[in-house]
Amino acid sequence: MTDKNTPVHPLDQAVALTPTDSGRWQGATSPAYANMVGPFGGTTGATLLNGVLCHEQLLGEPLSLTVNFAAPVADGDFEVVARPVRTNRNSQHWWVEMLQGGETVAFATAVTARRRETWASTESSFPEVSPASELSDASKEGRPRWTRNYDMRFVEGALMGEPHPHPDYPSRSRVWMKDQPARPLDFLSLSALCDAFFPRIYVRRPKLVPIGTVSLTTYFHATGEQLASVGTEPVLGVASANHFGQGFFDQSAEVWSPGGELLATTHQVVYFKE
Amino acid sequence: MTDKNTPVHPLDQAVALTPTDSGRWQGATSPAYANMVGPFGGTTGATLLNGVLCHEQLLGEPLSLTVNFAAPVADGDFEVVARPVRTNRNSQHWWVEMLQGGETVAFATAVTARRRETWASTESSFPEVSPASELSDASKEGRPRWTRNYDMRFVEGALMGEPHPHPDYPSRSRVWMKDQPARPLDFLSLSALCDAFFPRIYVRRPKLVPIGTVSLTTYFHATGEQLASVGTEPVLGVASANHFGQGFFDQSAEVWSPGGELLATTHQVVYFKE
Repeated sequence: MTDKNTPVHPLDQAVALTPTDSGRWQGATSPAYANMVGPFGGTTGATLLNGVLCHEQLLGEPLSLTVNFAAPVADGDFEVVARPVRTNRNSQHWWVEMLQGGETVAFATAVTARRRETWASTESSFPEVSPASELSDASKEGRPRWTRNYDMRFVEGALMGEPHPHPDYPSRSRVWMKDQPARPLDFLSLSALCDAFFPRIYVRRPKLVPIGTVSLTTYFHATGEQLASVGTEPVLGVASANHFGQGFFDQSAEVWSPGGELLATTHQVVYFKE
Repeated sequence: MTDKNTPVHPLDQAVALTPTDSGRWQGATSPAYANMVGPFGGTTGATLLNGVLCHEQLLGEPLSLTVNFAAPVADGDFEVVARPVRTNRNSQHWWVEMLQGGETVAFATAVTARRRETWASTESSFPEVSPASELSDASKEGRPRWTRNYDMRFVEGALMGEPHPHPDYPSRSRVWMKDQPARPLDFLSLSALCDAFFPRIYVRRPKLVPIGTVSLTTYFHATGEQLASVGTEPVLGVASANHFGQGFFDQSAEVWSPGGELLATTHQVVYFKE
């Protein structure tokens, strides 16, 4: 798989799966992607997606992915089990789960599809922002370990950037992001990047409270070939929330190529403590 | 369950489940909610959610629901099977599927949760639009049967409303919607309403092509009590697309109470033919 002289990228290490049976693999969490507790959710989701991508019956490329974070993932070994629930001519529906000690700690459903040329139109607008080269990488001082695997250049809405005296400060962040060290973009890294936005509540109400993503859905608008053409360039993420209340908030985000192609839209619902 | 003198509402008939075993029910599609082919997806999703709500182990109320439309649902009988994948202290993760002839035709994952009072803030804005009483119900002439179960009053973005000469016509619809005949709002009817928006492609490019929702995710921002307080008033839906291309487009929507509470945000990815 890998040239002996090329070290495996930390993301590829984190999502690596060793087959144990048909549709079954063994993996382990990676210290490089450690979060406050357990691993970064983006790598958990990417690992589940990798179960689909490694499956011998795979048809097409990822179209949608919904990851449910069912319980805390413990540092250490896990098992991944994937199965195609339904295979159609040009699309396939998937169930995939991550188990630890025989219990499901995370699971996902996914749709893969063979895509083809059709009419195309992007309705969202690529925002006019400063290029990544004019901004500097955000400090990772005091941040969880996983953030050091990302170069993040905030156009606006940096994490706990400044105290906001008014209660309705917009939660929007616009941030250039890429893997660090550099790694060519693909579905795995894009799916992880879709969970790399800091929680919107920390932007709208800059106060640290326990949070945890409950469910994360990503729609992929690009083909693998389009992603490959982005290479190691940064992508632009634009994230905001709609509603916070009764212990949960949502987030919606777009991920753009530097050339202005909408690569993915992604949504999540997140628990917060108070 | 129902007073002998009160006829069962067509939606309750469509999503009705008769228990056959623990976590297993029998149901049947309803002619009242017939779509072009098979049943309206909103009732399929609501039926899957009903499997969760009827389950003896249910904890809390719906927080998120992702429905995958795996294959065409045939008119007639189906089986629903639900199981809690993981039960935590205050939340529960669900798998539920609809089977016909032993094959999965649709499935969903859901999260239910016990909600509690916390800090709350709505970041999206309730749009300034004419009240429903000043608009008239859209004609259902030539539309699929299910549309007659909804009162729909378009503020903008009616289905194939007018020919749009320019290619970038916005796909946004703003529409007051409610069940017809009247039915007090609850999670079942709200989940179905979240799939009642006409496909965005018909607004942005008014040309009839075959389409089909592939995956639909809804985040519920309100409690059952809040939904009940809406009663039989219409809710305001605001829907738009981000990207169309290579056979698929996405849609994001908000559903508001007439009093300006954000009840749900909902997203879907949809197949289109050309």
